[in-house]
Formats: sequence, C-alpha cells, structure tokens
Amino acid sequence: MKAIADISIIPLGVGLSLSPYVAACEQVFRDAGLEPKLHANGTNVEGDWDAVMEALKTCHEELHAMGVPRIATNMRLGTRTDRDASMEAKIESVREKMEL
Amino acid sequence: MKAIADISIIPLGVGLSLSPYVAACEQVFRDAGLEPKLHANGTNVEGDWDAVMEALKTCHEELHAMGVPRIATNMRLGTRTDRDASMEAKIESVREKMEL
Amino acid sequence: MKAIADISIIPLGVGLSLSPYVAACEQVFRDAGLEPKLHANGTNVEGDWDAVMEALKTCHEELHAMGVPRIATNMRLGTRTDRDASMEAKIESVREKMEL
Amino acid sequence: MKAIADISIIPLGVGLSLSPYVAACEQVFRDAGLEPKLHANGTNVEGDWDAVMEALKTCHEELHAMGVPRIATNMRLGTRTDRDASMEAKIESVREKMEL
Repeated sequence: MKAIADISIIPLGVGLSLSPYVAACEQVFRDAGLEPKLHANGTNVEGDWDAVMEALKTCHEELHAMGVPRIATNMRLGTRTDRDASMEAKIESVREKMEL
Repeated sequence: MKAIADISIIPLGVGLSLSPYVAACEQVFRDAGLEPKLHANGTNVEGDWDAVMEALKTCHEELHAMGVPRIATNMRLGTRTDRDASMEAKIESVREKMEL
Repeated sequence: MKAIADISIIPLGVGLSLSPYVAACEQVFRDAGLEPKLHANGTNVEGDWDAVMEALKTCHEELHAMGVPRIATNMRLGTRTDRDASMEAKIESVREKMEL
Repeated sequence: MKAIADISIIPLGVGLSLSPYVAACEQVFRDAGLEPKLHANGTNVEGDWDAVMEALKTCHEELHAMGVPRIATNMRLGTRTDRDASMEAKIESVREKMEL
C-alpha cells in the first residue's frame, strides 16, 4: 500500500529555533529514499506505507536522542486503490485546472 | 516508545455518511487494545508506537476492503521522554488549571 | 455558515507544560459561547464560522499576551450544507453503527 | 498579527477528483493577495490573520456554491511575536542547516 504523507514535526522544550530538528528529519527521509519535498509548514514524502512509517519513527527517535524531550507531529496521510497516485501528479492536476 | 495519537480518518468517494467507516476503525483500535476515545472530530488512542501504527494501517486496509477508494487521514502524534504521559493525565492537567 | 472545529494549540518557547495555555483558551471558547469539549489532543467547538474564528484569534492574542512567543495551531474544520450537523450527532451516529 | 498557514481542503460528496476545487481555492487565495504556494498535500499562505481567515471562509462558501455539500479542512496555523517570519525564511533556515 503506497502512502503520500505531509509531515509537520514540532519539537517542544528546545526553544524557538526548530530548523536544526527539521533538517535532521529531512535527512532521515532522504536516507529512507522517500524523496522529501520540504515546504513552509512541513515535508511531503511518498513511498510504501511501512517505509514512511518506519522513517517517521526513526525521526522521532533521532530527535529524542538529540535531546528533544517532547515532540508533537501532525501528519496528513493519503492512500488510494482506484489508481496510482504521486505527489507530482497531484500538483499537476490542480495546475491544469488553473490554466483553464 | 509510547505514542498518544489523535486520528481523523476521512473516506473519499463513498458519499457523505462517514460513520460506518469510523465505526469500523473504532473496532480495529479496540481489537488492538488501544482504548480509543471517540470525539466529534477524531479518535484518541494511546499505546506503543508500533501498535498504534499497525492498527492505523489495518484500518486503512479494512476501509479499502470495504470499498473505499481513497482515504485522507489526519493524525496528531505525540511522544515524550521527560515523563510518562497518558491521555487521562493530559486532560486532568488542563482541568486543574481551569479550577484555579 | 456553521462550523464544527477541532483545535489543537501548541505554544512554543515556554517549556513542556502546556496546560495553563490550553486552559486559558478553554476559557476564551467558553466566554464565546462555543461550548468547548476538551479531549486529550485538542478541543472541539461548534458555532457560527465567524464566532469560532474570532475566538481562535482571541486565543492566539491572549497567549501571546501571556508571554508565548510562538504558537503552532492545528485545526480540523468542517462545514456542510446538506443538513444541520452537531458534535453530539456526529458521535451518536458512530455509536449507533458500533452497536449493530 | 501575521499568520502563516498551511491549508488542506477536502470536499466530500463530489467523488474522487478534488483538483477542480483545490484550483478554485487557489484562485481565492491569489485574489486575496496571499501568494499561495501549492504543494502535494495543501497550500501555504501568509498574510494578515484576518485576510487569511476571510479568504478561507470565501473558499468554503465558493465550494459550497459549486455544489460541494460537505467540506473537511485541515489547517496548520502559526503566529509569532519574537520576530518577523516568512514562508521563504522558514524554508531557507532548514536548508542552511542541511548544507552544514
């Protein structure tokens, strides 16, 4: 089962600069082959459900190991069986409608 | 690693009545021993990270098997290492502050 | 236009104890007549769209006034035109399916 | 008060092709001067709190007018008082950490 996910990870108890932690997770997602697409409020990844979830777990574990005592993640997670989907196709589909 | 999660599962392509699908997921979470607490916009569960994620996957699989072609889930997911947390304690902690 | 919302407000830069801030927002929602239902990962409110949004703004303003430098809110927000909805009815509808 | 928001709007009861509705909202955000940045699971906007919220309301109203009976939106919403923030700066800040 393929999953497309949008992951926003908020480390708590480490002050206001969250970017070092976001960067660490980007690396985890890259290492997992999930081709993360960073945006202003999260990161989009796509891949096999288990690979996405395993990477997210590694990310939480790594942030805790970096000294983050509490993490609040928000994830949007999509699966579909009617056809193959991709992040690129989702964006392209909206762009086509806008050009009309 | 313990996780506390708030899961909102939206089946797409099956009309407007979503409650049969939400009920099916409640049963999955119960069977997994996650003690789901249903609320108006999702379900709260707590348990071992892997157990929570495995149940969520089963839920997506079961809904697709029920004929749902597309699923959009939103999950809030918390982990912490500073102390043991529980859903009950989180609510209680807010209530105490409100009584002051 | 009526809205049913699930609001999770995370104050950043104030350490790990978030409950005083959640309690302050509960009071804002109560004062606005939105009948907040606190749960383990957020608060459900229902009311006129403008009233919900105005209360959420007041909540952010109040937390900043309490010294919170950064706030990350996650909101699930539902509107519908096919029939009148309520938080109570949404929960009841799922419970009925589970008793079958 | 400036807000940076990530808005995911899911129309229900209109089948599986959501892109026409997402495109309609993109136009609403553009018309409001919010410079929406579409990504695979939502759209990022930044602007004055009231402008963001007014545009989101217009978006719900327009989709209902297009015949969508039910809408489920998920919004991540950030405000901060410690310094001026922008979507571009948030992304840049993470990228800098990754180059190290």
